[in-house]
Amino acid sequence: MLNVGIVGATGYAGEELIDILLRHPDVRIAHLSAKIDNPKAISAIFPKFKNKIDLICGIPDIKEIINKSDLVFLVLPHTVSMDFAPKLLDAGKRVIDLSADYRLKDAKIYAQFYKAKQKDKAHLNTAVYGLPELYREKIRRAKLIANPGCYPTAAILALAPIAAFNLADLSSIIIDAKSGVTGAGRKVAEAFLFSEINEDFKAYKVNIHQHIPEINQEVSILAGKKTQITFVPHLLPLSRGILETIYVKKAKSRKHKAGNLVGLYKKFYKKEPFVRIKDEGDFPRLKDVVGTNLCDIGIKESADSIIIVSTIDNLLKGASGQAVQNMNIMCGFTETSGLK
Amino acid sequence: MLNVGIVGATGYAGEELIDILLRHPDVRIAHLSAKIDNPKAISAIFPKFKNKIDLICGIPDIKEIINKSDLVFLVLPHTVSMDFAPKLLDAGKRVIDLSADYRLKDAKIYAQFYKAKQKDKAHLNTAVYGLPELYREKIRRAKLIANPGCYPTAAILALAPIAAFNLADLSSIIIDAKSGVTGAGRKVAEAFLFSEINEDFKAYKVNIHQHIPEINQEVSILAGKKTQITFVPHLLPLSRGILETIYVKKAKSRKHKAGNLVGLYKKFYKKEPFVRIKDEGDFPRLKDVVGTNLCDIGIKESADSIIIVSTIDNLLKGASGQAVQNMNIMCGFTETSGLK
Amino acid sequence: MLNVGIVGATGYAGEELIDILLRHPDVRIAHLSAKIDNPKAISAIFPKFKNKIDLICGIPDIKEIINKSDLVFLVLPHTVSMDFAPKLLDAGKRVIDLSADYRLKDAKIYAQFYKAKQKDKAHLNTAVYGLPELYREKIRRAKLIANPGCYPTAAILALAPIAAFNLADLSSIIIDAKSGVTGAGRKVAEAFLFSEINEDFKAYKVNIHQHIPEINQEVSILAGKKTQITFVPHLLPLSRGILETIYVKKAKSRKHKAGNLVGLYKKFYKKEPFVRIKDEGDFPRLKDVVGTNLCDIGIKESADSIIIVSTIDNLLKGASGQAVQNMNIMCGFTETSGLK
Amino acid sequence: MLNVGIVGATGYAGEELIDILLRHPDVRIAHLSAKIDNPKAISAIFPKFKNKIDLICGIPDIKEIINKSDLVFLVLPHTVSMDFAPKLLDAGKRVIDLSADYRLKDAKIYAQFYKAKQKDKAHLNTAVYGLPELYREKIRRAKLIANPGCYPTAAILALAPIAAFNLADLSSIIIDAKSGVTGAGRKVAEAFLFSEINEDFKAYKVNIHQHIPEINQEVSILAGKKTQITFVPHLLPLSRGILETIYVKKAKSRKHKAGNLVGLYKKFYKKEPFVRIKDEGDFPRLKDVVGTNLCDIGIKESADSIIIVSTIDNLLKGASGQAVQNMNIMCGFTETSGLK
Repeated sequence: MLNVGIVGATGYAGEELIDILLRHPDVRIAHLSAKIDNPKAISAIFPKFKNKIDLICGIPDIKEIINKSDLVFLVLPHTVSMDFAPKLLDAGKRVIDLSADYRLKDAKIYAQFYKAKQKDKAHLNTAVYGLPELYREKIRRAKLIANPGCYPTAAILALAPIAAFNLADLSSIIIDAKSGVTGAGRKVAEAFLFSEINEDFKAYKVNIHQHIPEINQEVSILAGKKTQITFVPHLLPLSRGILETIYVKKAKSRKHKAGNLVGLYKKFYKKEPFVRIKDEGDFPRLKDVVGTNLCDIGIKESADSIIIVSTIDNLLKGASGQAVQNMNIMCGFTETSGLK
Repeated sequence: MLNVGIVGATGYAGEELIDILLRHPDVRIAHLSAKIDNPKAISAIFPKFKNKIDLICGIPDIKEIINKSDLVFLVLPHTVSMDFAPKLLDAGKRVIDLSADYRLKDAKIYAQFYKAKQKDKAHLNTAVYGLPELYREKIRRAKLIANPGCYPTAAILALAPIAAFNLADLSSIIIDAKSGVTGAGRKVAEAFLFSEINEDFKAYKVNIHQHIPEINQEVSILAGKKTQITFVPHLLPLSRGILETIYVKKAKSRKHKAGNLVGLYKKFYKKEPFVRIKDEGDFPRLKDVVGTNLCDIGIKESADSIIIVSTIDNLLKGASGQAVQNMNIMCGFTETSGLK
Repeated sequence: MLNVGIVGATGYAGEELIDILLRHPDVRIAHLSAKIDNPKAISAIFPKFKNKIDLICGIPDIKEIINKSDLVFLVLPHTVSMDFAPKLLDAGKRVIDLSADYRLKDAKIYAQFYKAKQKDKAHLNTAVYGLPELYREKIRRAKLIANPGCYPTAAILALAPIAAFNLADLSSIIIDAKSGVTGAGRKVAEAFLFSEINEDFKAYKVNIHQHIPEINQEVSILAGKKTQITFVPHLLPLSRGILETIYVKKAKSRKHKAGNLVGLYKKFYKKEPFVRIKDEGDFPRLKDVVGTNLCDIGIKESADSIIIVSTIDNLLKGASGQAVQNMNIMCGFTETSGLK
Repeated sequence: MLNVGIVGATGYAGEELIDILLRHPDVRIAHLSAKIDNPKAISAIFPKFKNKIDLICGIPDIKEIINKSDLVFLVLPHTVSMDFAPKLLDAGKRVIDLSADYRLKDAKIYAQFYKAKQKDKAHLNTAVYGLPELYREKIRRAKLIANPGCYPTAAILALAPIAAFNLADLSSIIIDAKSGVTGAGRKVAEAFLFSEINEDFKAYKVNIHQHIPEINQEVSILAGKKTQITFVPHLLPLSRGILETIYVKKAKSRKHKAGNLVGLYKKFYKKEPFVRIKDEGDFPRLKDVVGTNLCDIGIKESADSIIIVSTIDNLLKGASGQAVQNMNIMCGFTETSGLK
């Protein structure tokens, strides 16, 4: 049994991690902590965990985390993760960081989008971007995982095949993204009150969202050249799920013949347990992925353009589910353990 | 044109008041204020008012309120209204208070349920409980209106006929109340986040809610004897509307013959513009009253008991709509002005 | 591995059963059928089952059901179950019927509430009412289970302790019930369109719902005398979950001392894996039980009355989860298999 | 007082029309009909109209429509409007058709997208596309108005300024549209059940929606050359409102200087009572337009591309509100009557 710690256990992603790990046959939750006023039984914070786990959730103490855990999930705001990760790694622990702190290889871009300095360059260089479909072998050997953002997960999985095969005009990528409200975390602000969100819909951070450089970074690596995506996120009046509608112009000099893009995607993801490609003419809906670690993708190809619809559960494949998938790979567990 | 002021303009009830008064043919909104950090155009706070009203909403200043307004709506938390009302009344202004400060005639009960002292007993004595269906004549002559609470409005209108005719065993009244989320105001707290309320339902303040004494006070007056209601409110995952399901045992010595209770209700409310009694076997739904100042009531009578279902829009008949109805009566305007 | 068949696989309860049984270590789904136009892969009907199960769902054929299944779940409209059950039982199969056909011991009452004749009296006599908390031993030996209705499950679990100990005035029971929309099944009717239900709330079948005699039957058995409950169901604008607020007068001659009702409930359900009693002053919310087979119960006791709040997921403890719990008991599996 | 008839009064748009016209100072609703089984009081169909209007809604009879009405709103499925309009026009009535029958000038394209023949070419030629912001003078003199579709209204208003000034590469227009559920009308189908739509989100009719040619037609007229938009509609889990996010590449040879597009839009719509342009950096939300006849538009301009967000209430500016606006113009009423 692997002893795992969760630092930042009281947000939506933390709650979800506990849920998954309680079903996991190979791990034991050994430590829970969060920024709270007073230590409290986790089952008092989340009554649904009553009779299932009786750990106390206290204020994070680095020594205790190290004493109790073999592997630590950091479910913390960006900049805070960088304080914990180095100490845990130096103590020989494996770390899966759900924040953005180790995702962007270029510290200047991090500074620009997160308004803060990436102050742990040493580990930034060794951190592995935790998207198993692209980096499974590196994840297997990693000590520090930068768990991908929710929007980037849906976008990169949708774009990977056409980027890898250079089928698209990479200057033309437009991502119209829609997310449920848990995407914002358990943030107590007027904008996230029920009466504000209910029966409303709006765009936000129009083409300035902090997930833009993360998507550009990964699609550029796949394509072997710089991309400059257009990205507009919107807030859906529902709790969970991300759907992205992606518009791409075909590359003029494409070698790929029209008409078999669905086939190419199916082949690309053939062995992946968590990616499903819809048949020609079929498109995914949130309901089929919410509550799962799946990414469902539908594709429509015309003479000169491609429309891709990609869906995930933002708290699972977009956060905690993917984090557990990464843990499973790192630790040699069955990759789908706890996730089916 | 009557110059009206709104103190507390930025909550849901304040916003609704502005909406109604902009449609009102006989009034001019002359003053807006609220507890805010910096004065701001009301159309900057609520973009929907752009091109409709261009007043600045500042911090409440008693002199300015008095200078600008003939009649003032206080849309303030309880205990705060008591600070403003006396000064406005002394300056000869009419006041409609949407807080609970002047509703309970017994200051001891106020202290018990609101954990604060009623410190304006002088005006408490002259305040009129603003339920037009019961107190229209008094409202006409009033200087200070205690605008009823949302739950009490639906409950008292539902119980008034059987209380007035002594048809019920008053010790048996059970009110199972369900309210949309705006009932809690624009309160920024974790419990009111979208992701907490959405797809959830729960009871709260089980039989200890502060509206209990208000309902008891008014039903007791009608019946001529003390009542002791059981009252359990619940939070609905929707924005607006209250539905109360009320269970009453019939009085044993009732003179009223079984089988014509619907008829009795229709007669009781025959001249009321905002109360509609459903036909036998029909029950109201929120959709038919939300967005209106109406109270729809359905009744089911059996040999020894009565079930009443009562519905209102909590922000209209349950708050701002009723406040305007009271203003219309006080000022000799058409009672339905701005409300149809 | 037990081979199970599901007849009526395409409704919400059928879909949920498939979901649970796919996770169950001891069973294999061997047959799926439903009233459909043409046989179709179940994964074509429910894309979420893609890559998880590839059975064809055809029109029910009694021979095929018998050939393929050791145990059969009937997820059919009432009166239709009675056509299938006798043939399956005669062929030596075990049957768990999710309809109302075998729940009411008194065929006259069945006829009155379901407007149809109970035409299988032979098996009606041997059918066991499948509420494990009350009838676990009988379920163990049963061939035919009448799986309880959703409203009755929440109500009977909430009332069982006070009925069993005769703490209540049984003539006074009032159940104010609220259910999510899946409670109505996948019924295609204007009343269940999104735009009708969304932002609405209403009572329906006021004190005439067909679950009334089922609750009366079971509470009467426990108490040893006839009850006559008042029952008003309401439709919540959410997908899943039932919350019932129950009002009971205390029995005048009660032996039970005031103040320890929570303790008595905790003791009563001490060994039950799926019933959780809230601490004094705490009440359940739908979120904590939706997606689980749990029933959470909160109790408020005063000098002469009791308020009980009871919550379940209508599709799990209120239907398919309980059906699997019954199967587990009948077959000697771990009672919680597939349900945790 | 103008006598108006509504044929197709029982759908969402018909219901909304009644609502608006009851508030309108210059008209009288003189006729209501719809495809129903038996004639019924409209207040029995919609209880919210009780005490407000007591007309009977019967089966449409052309003679009665003509006898009772000066102007007729046809709120009918496409192909059905073409049966009524010619007879009404021949009888000298003015007609506002909310269906698609007279919107597309090219009958071949109509046939292709609506799978039916446009069989009233005579009136097709004289029909005026009822978008007041573009065709006010023609509307003033029209006998037959083709009331625009909901998606096209939001799209054309968003694109008109850049099309009129030739600022865009018209081959590049991408419209990612999201609509509330009333957009589908009161259609009784499994896909529109509450439990299907709630907590779900999906794309549909991906780049094949019948509103595509309508948008192309109008934007092409404005720009003076053919456009070929990409259009993907999605279904939002809310009742009312459309938000479209539109992506356009700038024209290479544009004369328009970067940086003042917001200003250009404000000037373009300066005199329009129902179009509001957001300030630089601000974007619209559904809440500010739902319940109104407004179209709110936000614009983000970069070096080589433009993002436009456009919002309307699909039942008001997208259907019945715009129909009344057209009536007001045709009849010389104040253009905003009934709509403020």
